[in-house]
Amino acid sequence: MSHPLWGGRFTAPSSEIMKEINASIKFDKALYQEDIACSISHCKMLVKQKIITESDGQLIIYGLNVIKEQISSNNFDFNIDLEDIHMHIEHYLHQIIGEVAGKLHTARSRNDQIATDLKLWTKKYILIFDSKLHMLQSSLISIAEKHYNTIMPGFTHLQIAQPVTFGHHMMAYFEMFKRDRIRLKNLYQTINECPLGSAALAGTSFNIDRHFVAKELGFECPTENSIDSVSDRDYIIEFLSNTSICIMHLSRIAEELILWSSYGFKFIQLSDDMTTGSSIMPQKRNPDAAELIRGKAAQIFSSLNQLLVIMKGLPLSYSKDMQEDKESTFVAANNLLLCIEAMNSMLNSMTINTEIMTKVALCDFSIATDIADWLVKNLNISFRKSHEITGKIVKLAETQKCNISNLTIQQLQSIHSNITEDIFLILSVQESVKSKTSYGGTAPVNVINAIQKGKLYLSQASLS
Amino acid sequence: MSHPLWGGRFTAPSSEIMKEINASIKFDKALYQEDIACSISHCKMLVKQKIITESDGQLIIYGLNVIKEQISSNNFDFNIDLEDIHMHIEHYLHQIIGEVAGKLHTARSRNDQIATDLKLWTKKYILIFDSKLHMLQSSLISIAEKHYNTIMPGFTHLQIAQPVTFGHHMMAYFEMFKRDRIRLKNLYQTINECPLGSAALAGTSFNIDRHFVAKELGFECPTENSIDSVSDRDYIIEFLSNTSICIMHLSRIAEELILWSSYGFKFIQLSDDMTTGSSIMPQKRNPDAAELIRGKAAQIFSSLNQLLVIMKGLPLSYSKDMQEDKESTFVAANNLLLCIEAMNSMLNSMTINTEIMTKVALCDFSIATDIADWLVKNLNISFRKSHEITGKIVKLAETQKCNISNLTIQQLQSIHSNITEDIFLILSVQESVKSKTSYGGTAPVNVINAIQKGKLYLSQASLS
Amino acid sequence: MSHPLWGGRFTAPSSEIMKEINASIKFDKALYQEDIACSISHCKMLVKQKIITESDGQLIIYGLNVIKEQISSNNFDFNIDLEDIHMHIEHYLHQIIGEVAGKLHTARSRNDQIATDLKLWTKKYILIFDSKLHMLQSSLISIAEKHYNTIMPGFTHLQIAQPVTFGHHMMAYFEMFKRDRIRLKNLYQTINECPLGSAALAGTSFNIDRHFVAKELGFECPTENSIDSVSDRDYIIEFLSNTSICIMHLSRIAEELILWSSYGFKFIQLSDDMTTGSSIMPQKRNPDAAELIRGKAAQIFSSLNQLLVIMKGLPLSYSKDMQEDKESTFVAANNLLLCIEAMNSMLNSMTINTEIMTKVALCDFSIATDIADWLVKNLNISFRKSHEITGKIVKLAETQKCNISNLTIQQLQSIHSNITEDIFLILSVQESVKSKTSYGGTAPVNVINAIQKGKLYLSQASLS
Amino acid sequence: MSHPLWGGRFTAPSSEIMKEINASIKFDKALYQEDIACSISHCKMLVKQKIITESDGQLIIYGLNVIKEQISSNNFDFNIDLEDIHMHIEHYLHQIIGEVAGKLHTARSRNDQIATDLKLWTKKYILIFDSKLHMLQSSLISIAEKHYNTIMPGFTHLQIAQPVTFGHHMMAYFEMFKRDRIRLKNLYQTINECPLGSAALAGTSFNIDRHFVAKELGFECPTENSIDSVSDRDYIIEFLSNTSICIMHLSRIAEELILWSSYGFKFIQLSDDMTTGSSIMPQKRNPDAAELIRGKAAQIFSSLNQLLVIMKGLPLSYSKDMQEDKESTFVAANNLLLCIEAMNSMLNSMTINTEIMTKVALCDFSIATDIADWLVKNLNISFRKSHEITGKIVKLAETQKCNISNLTIQQLQSIHSNITEDIFLILSVQESVKSKTSYGGTAPVNVINAIQKGKLYLSQASLS
Repeated sequence: MSHPLWGGRFTAPSSEIMKEINASIKFDKALYQEDIACSISHCKMLVKQKIITESDGQLIIYGLNVIKEQISSNNFDFNIDLEDIHMHIEHYLHQIIGEVAGKLHTARSRNDQIATDLKLWTKKYILIFDSKLHMLQSSLISIAEKHYNTIMPGFTHLQIAQPVTFGHHMMAYFEMFKRDRIRLKNLYQTINECPLGSAALAGTSFNIDRHFVAKELGFECPTENSIDSVSDRDYIIEFLSNTSICIMHLSRIAEELILWSSYGFKFIQLSDDMTTGSSIMPQKRNPDAAELIRGKAAQIFSSLNQLLVIMKGLPLSYSKDMQEDKESTFVAANNLLLCIEAMNSMLNSMTINTEIMTKVALCDFSIATDIADWLVKNLNISFRKSHEITGKIVKLAETQKCNISNLTIQQLQSIHSNITEDIFLILSVQESVKSKTSYGGTAPVNVINAIQKGKLYLSQASLS
Repeated sequence: MSHPLWGGRFTAPSSEIMKEINASIKFDKALYQEDIACSISHCKMLVKQKIITESDGQLIIYGLNVIKEQISSNNFDFNIDLEDIHMHIEHYLHQIIGEVAGKLHTARSRNDQIATDLKLWTKKYILIFDSKLHMLQSSLISIAEKHYNTIMPGFTHLQIAQPVTFGHHMMAYFEMFKRDRIRLKNLYQTINECPLGSAALAGTSFNIDRHFVAKELGFECPTENSIDSVSDRDYIIEFLSNTSICIMHLSRIAEELILWSSYGFKFIQLSDDMTTGSSIMPQKRNPDAAELIRGKAAQIFSSLNQLLVIMKGLPLSYSKDMQEDKESTFVAANNLLLCIEAMNSMLNSMTINTEIMTKVALCDFSIATDIADWLVKNLNISFRKSHEITGKIVKLAETQKCNISNLTIQQLQSIHSNITEDIFLILSVQESVKSKTSYGGTAPVNVINAIQKGKLYLSQASLS
Repeated sequence: MSHPLWGGRFTAPSSEIMKEINASIKFDKALYQEDIACSISHCKMLVKQKIITESDGQLIIYGLNVIKEQISSNNFDFNIDLEDIHMHIEHYLHQIIGEVAGKLHTARSRNDQIATDLKLWTKKYILIFDSKLHMLQSSLISIAEKHYNTIMPGFTHLQIAQPVTFGHHMMAYFEMFKRDRIRLKNLYQTINECPLGSAALAGTSFNIDRHFVAKELGFECPTENSIDSVSDRDYIIEFLSNTSICIMHLSRIAEELILWSSYGFKFIQLSDDMTTGSSIMPQKRNPDAAELIRGKAAQIFSSLNQLLVIMKGLPLSYSKDMQEDKESTFVAANNLLLCIEAMNSMLNSMTINTEIMTKVALCDFSIATDIADWLVKNLNISFRKSHEITGKIVKLAETQKCNISNLTIQQLQSIHSNITEDIFLILSVQESVKSKTSYGGTAPVNVINAIQKGKLYLSQASLS
Repeated sequence: MSHPLWGGRFTAPSSEIMKEINASIKFDKALYQEDIACSISHCKMLVKQKIITESDGQLIIYGLNVIKEQISSNNFDFNIDLEDIHMHIEHYLHQIIGEVAGKLHTARSRNDQIATDLKLWTKKYILIFDSKLHMLQSSLISIAEKHYNTIMPGFTHLQIAQPVTFGHHMMAYFEMFKRDRIRLKNLYQTINECPLGSAALAGTSFNIDRHFVAKELGFECPTENSIDSVSDRDYIIEFLSNTSICIMHLSRIAEELILWSSYGFKFIQLSDDMTTGSSIMPQKRNPDAAELIRGKAAQIFSSLNQLLVIMKGLPLSYSKDMQEDKESTFVAANNLLLCIEAMNSMLNSMTINTEIMTKVALCDFSIATDIADWLVKNLNISFRKSHEITGKIVKLAETQKCNISNLTIQQLQSIHSNITEDIFLILSVQESVKSKTSYGGTAPVNVINAIQKGKLYLSQASLS
C-alpha cells in the first residue's frame, strides 16, 4: 500500500526504519485539540467562500467533532503508519464521513497547519503559566505580609552581608515573576498572527479568507508572508527563552530552600508532604522537590539551545528538521508547570524559624556597614575613610571574639577618637533594617508599600 | 600593601593567582563610559540631597571627566591589581582630586553600580541593533522592489516545491527582522528601571533620591526591590535571547547565499570584495563572510546558554559567578554587529542571475500543485483525489523525461478523461505565481503591497 | 499510608504534586533488566557472605525472575506511588515472596543501585553502537570499493575545489566512525568499575564482597571510593559526548545527501522507501530521514549540555538533581540508534549518478591547482609565483567562458612564456586524481589501499 | 592592492567589513609557535625530498626562526590586512628572505596547516593539564593524609546523612581527577596523527614524505584520509568535553568550599590571600575564587556546545565556519588553567576546623543507619523492618529533643523489646566510621590504603 496522503507518485512504501524515524505521532498527538480547531475554522471558511458546499462542511465538522471526542476519551488508535496527528485525523475522518473528507485539505498544507497548531498550543501555555505565576505571586505576597518585619541575614557570596527583612526577600522573588509575566505578555501579543492559508509556502490560488480564519482561532490577523509563515519558529524559541528565565528564577529559590533547610541554616523546615526519606537512612528528610526544580532547569535551558540549533542555517522554507521542535518543548512546558506548582506548595507549607533567622542576622558583623554610614554622617569623613575605620573595628571585635555592639566606647575610641556613645543607638539589626528607607530598600515600611503595590498589580495583570 | 578599596580588615594581600582569576578589568573596561555616567549622576544626586557639598561634587565630576577623556584617548593605564573598572576609576580619581574622591562611594556599592552599567550598556546596544536592522530591512525592501516579479523556485526540504517571486522571498527575511525589532523594543521597555541606590543589597540609610538618578541616566524609574536589583541579570539573558534569534535568522540567509552561489545553483554571485580566495587553489571564490555568520551563530547561542547556566541555582543576592556575565556577552554583541553589516554588504553587492532562477523555477514539476488545484476547481473532485491524479501525471512526465507542460492532452486524459485543454493555460511559472493572491501569498501584486506596508513600517519603527 | 520504603519517620504522606515531580518510574522503568541483574548479583553475594541464608537467597532470586518475566511480557503495573524502578521491584517482590523481600536491601542503597544500573545500561549501549557503526563502516567500504575510481568534485566552502574520487570521500566518513569507535572503546574500559556496595555514600559495616559482585555483573573491579561512587555521572557525560560527536558526523553526511539529492547537484537519488512526499505538492520526494538526522543532532548536543549543567556545582554526594540524568539520555541514545540505521539504509539504497559527478568535477576550474603544481615543477618558480600565474590563467578562461583545457598554448604562453604543450597532459580530472598519490591523498591506488586497511580493521575492531 | 596570498584572480580588494569579519589574527596569533614548528618540519621535508634546494631550505628556516624570535619578544606587528597567523608569517618571511619564501607553501594549504597547528596546540594543553592535575592530586593526598581519621558529616541532598572521614572525602575528589587524566591520556593517544600534507583536501602530486613530517612534529604517523584531515575537529571537541568534565568536578569542590566557609557550616576558613572584601561592607571575606570557578564552568560547557554546533551539518571538506573553533576554545583552556591553580591554592591554604566538623557529624541523627544495621545483625530481622524501627527511634529522639545516644535503654526497648545495651557500643561517630570497612568505604584504615594506592598512581601516571 502506498502512502494515503502523499503517495501518488511513489513506487515503494516507506521502509520500517523510515517510518520509525519519520513518525511524529508519539509526541504531536498532544496537539489534537489545536489541530481539530484549525480544521474546523478552515472548513467554515471554505464554506463561507463557497469553495466547498455547506452540507460538505457540516459533514466534515461533524466528523471532526467525533474524532475529538474519541481522542479525549482515549477511544482512538494511534499508529506510526499514519505518521502524524494531521494524517491520523484525516484518515479517521475519511473512515467516518467517506470521500468528502478529502475536501478538507483544499488550500492548505501540513506546513501551515503545524505552524498554526503550534502557535495555538503556545498561546494556551502562555495563559496557563501566566495564571500559575499569578498564584505563586499571591503566595509570596501572603508570606511577605506575615513577615514584613521579620529579620533575617541578607547574603552576598553566601556570606552574611547585612540584615534584611524576610518580607523584602520574598518581594524580591515577586519582582522576578513580574518580569516573567511581562515577557509572557509581550510574547502573547507578538504571536498574534495566524499562519493558516499560507499553504506549502507560496499561498494559494483558491479564494480563501485568511482574516476570517485568524479571527475564528483567536488571532488578531493573518501572517504577512507565506514563505516566512511556514519557516518561522521564533515563537517557540521566545517561549523557551521565557520559560528558561522563569525556571532559572525558580532554581534560585529552590537553592535557597535547600540551603535554608540544611543543618547549617535551619531557617525553614519543609513540610513532610513535600519532602522524602531515604531507603537506607531512616532519619533523612530530603528536599527532593527543590532539587528537582534545580535539576529540571537544565532540561529547559537545553531545550532552548536545541531549538536554536535546529533552526540555525536552515534554508527557507520548511525543512523536516523542524519536526524536532516539539518533543523537548512539550517536556519543557510540562516541567515548568510541575516546578511552579511544587514551588508554590513548598512555600505555602514550609515552617519559618523566625527566631533563628533573627539571631543569625546579627552574626559575622553584619551591621558593619551601618557603622561606616554612621561615621560618614557624624564625623564628616569620606566613605572610603570610614570603610577603613570600620574594617579596624571589625578586626578588633574579631580578635576579642565578640559582637561589635559588645565593644566598649573606649575600644571604639581607640580606633577613632571622635566616636561617641550615640553610635550604640544604631547597633542592632532592628535599627539597621529600619534605617534602610531608600526607595526599594529593606525597611519594613517599604515592604508594606511594596505589598500594596503588588496587590494592585495582581488585581490587574492577568492575561486571560 | 592591603587592598585600596576593601582591604581594611585583611592581613594578607591577594595572591597572584587570586588577582588573575578575580580581575575583570580585561573586559569590563568596555563599560567605562557607562560607569562614569553612573558616577556623575550619583554625584549630582548626593549634592542635591546635601549628602556631599556642592564644591566636593564639582571636584568629583571634574575628575571623572578627566578620566573619561584619558580613557577615550588611550592615555590610561589598566592593571589587574585594580581588579575592575570601578576601582580603576576610583583609584585615579583619588590621584587627581585627592581625599574627596572617597566621598563618591557614599550610599552605593559595586553591586548596584555594575548592574546599572550593564543595563546602560544593554540599552545602548539595543539602539544600535535596532538601527542596523533598520538598515538591513531597507536593503531588503530595495531588492524586493527590483524583483517583485522575478521568478525563482521556492524550496521545501531543499527540493524544488513551487515557483515564488524573489521579492516575496526577500520580504520573508524582512518579516524576520521585523520580529527581531519588536523583541528589542519590548526589552527596551522592560529594562527601564534603574538599580543604582540599591547599594550592596539592602538599600541605604542615606537620604538619597533614586528617582532623580534614574531620570538623569535615561531610565523611567528606579527598581522596586534592592535585593532583586543586585541579583538580577534577566535583561542580559533576554538580550542574548534576542540576539540569538536574530543571528539564527542571519544564519539562514547566509546558508541560502552559500547555496545560491554554489555550482549547483548559481542564482547569485557574491562580489569580489565580499569573498576570499584560497592559498592553494587559485580559482576559488569563497563565501567566507556567509560561512562566518553561520559559524558565529553558535557563539551567540552558547553565550545565551552560558548566562542561564551561570545564574542557575545562585542564591540571592550577588554572587561572584555573575562577573562571568560580561566577557562572552560582549563578544556576542560584537559578533552580531559584524554579521548584520556583513550581511548587508553581501546583499547589496551580490549579482542576481534572474535568468537562471526563472529557468530552474520550472524544474522538478514545480507546478504540480497548480494542476491539483485546477482539477479541484474544474472537475469537482476532492483535493485528496486530485493530489493522487496529479501524482500520476508527474510520474508520467518523469517517465517521459519531459516537463508537465509538454505532455499532450491525450496523455493527460489517459489519466483523467475530464481534463480539458484549458489546463494548459495555467502550466507556466508565471501563471503559477500570479495566481497565488491569497493574503500573504507570493503573487507580484501582493509583493508590491507588502513593500508599501514595509516602507510605512520603516518610516515609523525606529527606537531611537 | 506512609511510604513503603522510607516512611518510618514521616507524619504525612507525599502530596500529589510531590509524587508527580518526584516519580521517575515513567523513564527509569527502562532499566528494569539492569536493576534486576544488580539485585540478583547482590543477593548471591549476601548468601556467599552468609549475611542472608541460602534459602532466603533462593526465594529472592526466584521472585526477581518472576518480576523480570512479568515486566518483559508487559504483565506489570507501573504507578507513580511507587516512585521508581527500585521500589516497584521491591514492592512486588514483597507481594510475591513476603517478608523475606526486606532482606535484599541489606548493605546497599538506592544511590549505589542506580549508579550501577546506569553503568550497566551505558555499557550495553556502547556495545550496540559499536556494532551498528561496524555495520555502517562496512556499507561505506562496499560503496568505496565500487567507486574507488569514480570522480567527483571535491568541495571547500561548498565551492568546487579539486577533483577527488567518490571512494576517497566515502573513506573520509569511514575515518570519522573509526574515531567514534575508539572513543567508545576508551569509555568502555574506563567505565569498568562497579559502584554497588558503596551504599548511601559511606560504605557499609556488613562484611560484603564487592569484588564478587563486580565480576558477576561483568565489571573488572569495584570502585575505589564510596562517596565518589554515588556522586559520579562522568560516564553518562562521556557517553553523551561520544554520541554527540558521532551524530555530528552523521549530520554532516546527512547534509551532503540533502545537497547531493537537490536539484542543483543531482549526484544521487535517494530511494523511494527512504524519502517521503508532500500532502499538497504531489511531485515532491523529500529527504526527510537525512533532515531528521541533522535535526536530531541538536537533541543529543543539548542532552550533553543538560547533563553537565545538572552536575555543575552539586555538592557531594548524591543530590536529587541527578535523577534528571536519565530521561534525555535515553532519548539521545534512541535517537542515535535510529539515525545510524537510517543513514545506513539511505547509503545502501541510494542511486549514484557517476556521470553527473564526473562531469561537474571539471567545472569551476577545479584543476587550477594542478596547473600551479605543474608550473612549480617545470618552470623552477616558487609556489606563490605559480599561484599568481595560475590565477591569471583562470581569469583568462573565465573571460573566454571556457575551461582551462580549452585555452590554446598561445593563450597560456601570453601569461607565462615558458609554458609548454606538456601542460595539456595533466589537464583532466582523471590525471588530476591519479597524481594525488601522497599518503592519504585521493588517488585511486590510495583508495584501494585504504579499503584493504579498513577491511582488516573491521575484522579486528569489534568490542563485543 | 590585491591579496598577497590568494588574490591573483580577484578584481577588487576586500571591503573593510569583510576584512574585519574574516580576520582571525586577533586570536590565532596564539598559535605562532605551532605554526612555525609546522613550517620548519615541512621545509626540512621539502629539502629531504629534493622539492626545494638545501640552501633555499636553510634560508627559509633561518627566516622562520627570526620571526619566532620577533613574536616571542613582542617585536612583531599584527594587522588584520594579513588575515591570519599563516599569512603574517609568510608575509614577513618574504620581507626577510625575499622571493624564496614563496617556495615554503609548496605541497600544502592553509587547511592542513591550521589542522596541524591546532592538534599541536591541543597536545601541548593536554600535557599542561595533566601536570596541573597531578599537582592538584598531590595536594589532595597531602590533606587526606593529615585527615584520614578526621570525622565530618557526609551529606546527601545537602542533609546530614552519615559520618565520614574528611580524608575519604578528599580522596573522592582524587578519583574524579584520576578519571580526568585517563580521559586526557586517551585523547593524547588518539590525536596522534598528523594532517600536514593533506593539502587543500585532495593530497598532492608532489613527492612528499608525510611520515617524516609526522615524526618531526612528535606525531606517531600521518592521517589516513586527506579529505577527513582538513574537515576534522573531533580532537577539539573531545578536548572541550574533557575540560568540561574537569571543570564540572572543580565546580563541585568550589560549591563545597563556598558552603563550608559560610556562616552555617564554618568547616573551613579560606585564607586572606584567596578571598576578597567588599567595597561597602568592611567585614566581608568572600570566596570569590570558588565562585568564579563555578561560574567559569558555564563558559567551558558552552564552548563545547559551540564547537558541536559549528560542526553540525557542515558538508565536507573545509568550511570557513570552522575558523570559529579557536577563540572560545582558547578562553576555555585558559579558564581551566586558572581554575585548577586557584583551586590548588585554596585547598593548600585553607584552615580546617576539625572540631566543628566532628561535632556536626553527630547531628541530625546521622548514625541512624548504624542502628538499623545493628538491628539486622543482632535481632535477625530484615533490613526493611529494621529501617522502620529505626525510623521510630529517630522520631522518639526528635520528640525528646536529644541525640539517639542519649535515649535510655528503656526508651529503646519501648520501641523494640529485644534491643540490648550492647547497642550503645556503636552509637558514636567514631565507631560509625570505623565500621565502614567494605571496599571503598570510609573507614580510616581504608583511607590509608587509598592514599598508598594514590601515591603509587602519582609516581607512574604522568603523561609527559
